[in-house]
Amino acid sequence: MSQATQKEPSKNEKTITPRAKDFSEWYLDIIAAADLADYAPVKGCMVIKPYGYAIWENIQKVLDAKFKQTGVKNAYFPLLIPQSYLQREAAHVEGFAPETAVVTEAGGKKLEEPLVIRPTSETIIYAMFAKWVQSYRDLPLLINQWANIVRWEMRTRLFLRTTEFLWQEGHTAHTTEKEADERALQMLDIYQDFANNYLAMPVFSGTKSEAEKFAGAVRTYCIEAMMQDGKALQAGTSHLLGQNFAKVFDLKFLNPEGVEDFAHNTSWGVSTRLIGGIIMTHSDDKGLVLPPKIAPIQVVVLPIWNNEDDKVNVLVVAEKVAAELQELNISVEIDRRDERFGVKTYEWEKKGVPVRIEIGPKDLAKEAVTVVRRDLDGKNSLPLGGLAQSIDDLLIEIQNNLFDRSRLFRDQHTFEVNNYDEFKEKIELGFVKAHWCGLPKCEEKIKEDTKATVRCLPFDAPVEPGKCIICGEGSSKRPIFAKSY
Amino acid sequence: MSQATQKEPSKNEKTITPRAKDFSEWYLDIIAAADLADYAPVKGCMVIKPYGYAIWENIQKVLDAKFKQTGVKNAYFPLLIPQSYLQREAAHVEGFAPETAVVTEAGGKKLEEPLVIRPTSETIIYAMFAKWVQSYRDLPLLINQWANIVRWEMRTRLFLRTTEFLWQEGHTAHTTEKEADERALQMLDIYQDFANNYLAMPVFSGTKSEAEKFAGAVRTYCIEAMMQDGKALQAGTSHLLGQNFAKVFDLKFLNPEGVEDFAHNTSWGVSTRLIGGIIMTHSDDKGLVLPPKIAPIQVVVLPIWNNEDDKVNVLVVAEKVAAELQELNISVEIDRRDERFGVKTYEWEKKGVPVRIEIGPKDLAKEAVTVVRRDLDGKNSLPLGGLAQSIDDLLIEIQNNLFDRSRLFRDQHTFEVNNYDEFKEKIELGFVKAHWCGLPKCEEKIKEDTKATVRCLPFDAPVEPGKCIICGEGSSKRPIFAKSY
Repeated sequence: MSQATQKEPSKNEKTITPRAKDFSEWYLDIIAAADLADYAPVKGCMVIKPYGYAIWENIQKVLDAKFKQTGVKNAYFPLLIPQSYLQREAAHVEGFAPETAVVTEAGGKKLEEPLVIRPTSETIIYAMFAKWVQSYRDLPLLINQWANIVRWEMRTRLFLRTTEFLWQEGHTAHTTEKEADERALQMLDIYQDFANNYLAMPVFSGTKSEAEKFAGAVRTYCIEAMMQDGKALQAGTSHLLGQNFAKVFDLKFLNPEGVEDFAHNTSWGVSTRLIGGIIMTHSDDKGLVLPPKIAPIQVVVLPIWNNEDDKVNVLVVAEKVAAELQELNISVEIDRRDERFGVKTYEWEKKGVPVRIEIGPKDLAKEAVTVVRRDLDGKNSLPLGGLAQSIDDLLIEIQNNLFDRSRLFRDQHTFEVNNYDEFKEKIELGFVKAHWCGLPKCEEKIKEDTKATVRCLPFDAPVEPGKCIICGEGSSKRPIFAKSY
Repeated sequence: MSQATQKEPSKNEKTITPRAKDFSEWYLDIIAAADLADYAPVKGCMVIKPYGYAIWENIQKVLDAKFKQTGVKNAYFPLLIPQSYLQREAAHVEGFAPETAVVTEAGGKKLEEPLVIRPTSETIIYAMFAKWVQSYRDLPLLINQWANIVRWEMRTRLFLRTTEFLWQEGHTAHTTEKEADERALQMLDIYQDFANNYLAMPVFSGTKSEAEKFAGAVRTYCIEAMMQDGKALQAGTSHLLGQNFAKVFDLKFLNPEGVEDFAHNTSWGVSTRLIGGIIMTHSDDKGLVLPPKIAPIQVVVLPIWNNEDDKVNVLVVAEKVAAELQELNISVEIDRRDERFGVKTYEWEKKGVPVRIEIGPKDLAKEAVTVVRRDLDGKNSLPLGGLAQSIDDLLIEIQNNLFDRSRLFRDQHTFEVNNYDEFKEKIELGFVKAHWCGLPKCEEKIKEDTKATVRCLPFDAPVEPGKCIICGEGSSKRPIFAKSY
């Protein structure tokens, strides 16, 4: 259970490894410098520290409200699932059984049947749905839970792939496949909107290939984001499960004609890996960069003083400014610590706070403050009059700038190629759109040769005649290929 | 793993067992009738259904804000704890080891060291604190987590005692015992205020006896509520842990003089058992009764119509009323279903919604609505003009009435006794205040004879000379004894 084999976040180091030098080291340095997470004494597990958890709380707040607006209700299902439940759906057990943590003893005794810690909750949830649903009047059933999940991963990385992680998992049951499919797509839309407009993380949305779909699903929809190393991050998935689970858990309903039928299910989820996505989309060599809409602290106010008289004056103004910002629902913190100015600015930079307001005697003499954006270099002087509104506007500008910048980066690193040589060259740089016949053997060859997989067939991929870059067979659309996290 | 041995909630039954007939059956009937929870297919585990979970969300919302106001920050620590961690603190392991669920296999292999699912997180959290704290400047450390917990209980009961439950556990570290003790008491104050003013559940607060304190604590503070069967429910605890855990996990800091010392810890928690407490404090033979401040739906609006013209008219007014209530932040639902009036009222009654507003053609003719309180019998006609404000006032009145009623019940079932015969008679009826010498052997005798335990020594217990009801030795204060959940 030792952590010896894992990279420690370099907590007290003063420097962050540059992205260009070692992206993976840079990522861990950012997490340590911003104090987001730490390694736990159990292999592959993490502790989410307060600043990292506050980001998760903001993610939860936004998504939870959006889910509820569509009629979804939260509930809570057990952590422990009888092993036999997992085994009932053939594809599902094949996908998840190798990764489970198994409870074999409890209360001092060996259990008759081992229990697995949920690696996902389809089996237990649809078993319960089967108890609750009798007639079409009980449908649709629209449930979500915020929960912890355990998957025994071989190679772990903070936030991106940890043995235990936090997520939400939505589970719904419907009378028709059409309605279920619409729900799966509706939830993916929420994820896409959230990624674009809150995380400022542009995503492609589309359908997974058969090889990449969820174990037990009929079809998997996903959103895929590009990290600054050109790799893809699967940021959210929504599955049409069809009647696969309904059949094994006997989730049936009587339709209006009195005929029994199996329900159609969907499941959909995002997890704490989104925090990894935020980090790798926006941060720079100075530290974390957070989109304002998801930042736990949107504005930090730094009073600057050389003597006690100054201190009193700047603090009064700092508090007034903070109060005005709070009235506009801006989350603000005043850094009153008796620390050197450089130490403070360095710290807030590393923590990715979108806006820093510096208030010193010279600023006050001008009835102004100095404003520093985290996303751009340089400082600006802004008048105290109307400051709160200016800052509110600035936060929107920063949010938009982060999105535009990330989208530009992604578009500059997304390539259309028409043959395999070109594919192998460009796949080292980012996303590649290439024709593929749809057969697993061509997909496998690409994966073996390049480590790249089909990330998705985008919904908006134009129809055009083409030939599979591997076998030359006909293809009408280009999926997106990439290496991924 | 079968549920066969557990009592099924009588979901589709039309009647609720009267409290007077069988309190325990009544409790389960209320849960089933209000659709709060269900049994899971793993022994002693429950599924918290949407309406039950919404109560938990309201509890979380209020407490989370109160914790944060005192400087506490949320974080997340791992579910799985190395077994050796639990064994380091002698009293702690004795208290918790017999109840743990143990993971012995994961990822298809036997683990070198078994992992326990957290029965509480002192060990893992203070091990992490030890990594984070170097100097007194790093203290106090004020952390809370909302998490799931597993304790392998022999006898379980929905919400009150389940193998898995949800809770919050606060963990803090301080430079002095005095500061730690103040924090433990501050958090107990929050619990007491919450129980009284939100759950309308009057509590006694005080100190646990040595026999009843938390395994590993120096001192345990608690709040104790009386259920309608006269039994006590421990509704929240706050522990002064002293340096017990700091010493075994090497949680040290350098004080301002450069001398190393162990930190002083506190931990404090409330759980989903509070929902059981709400049920058993307020509900009646008709179903659940919820205090307005914690009710997921505070007001239900019931439009009544006999023909389509009526329907249009009453729905317009119902929506206007609902909108006005929502403007005052009142949570409201319009029941538009095409169901019989009696079916609807019966359902909302069982669900404990504090106020029902009925709007029919006759009400409209009078420019009024019919208002029904869940906590009292009878109906009132209220004018449409100024209705929202009247309802807002009424919700406060209901909240206060529930508290007053519960406090009256508790006071009427709390007895001062001066000898053991009287003790044995009164302990069957409720709480008993009796002199006790403080020695475990007298406490044990009482427990053996009557099943009652010391619930707490109330902070406000008056000093008075007395004699232990068992041994006759001197005593200066009366603890509260009761049978408990």
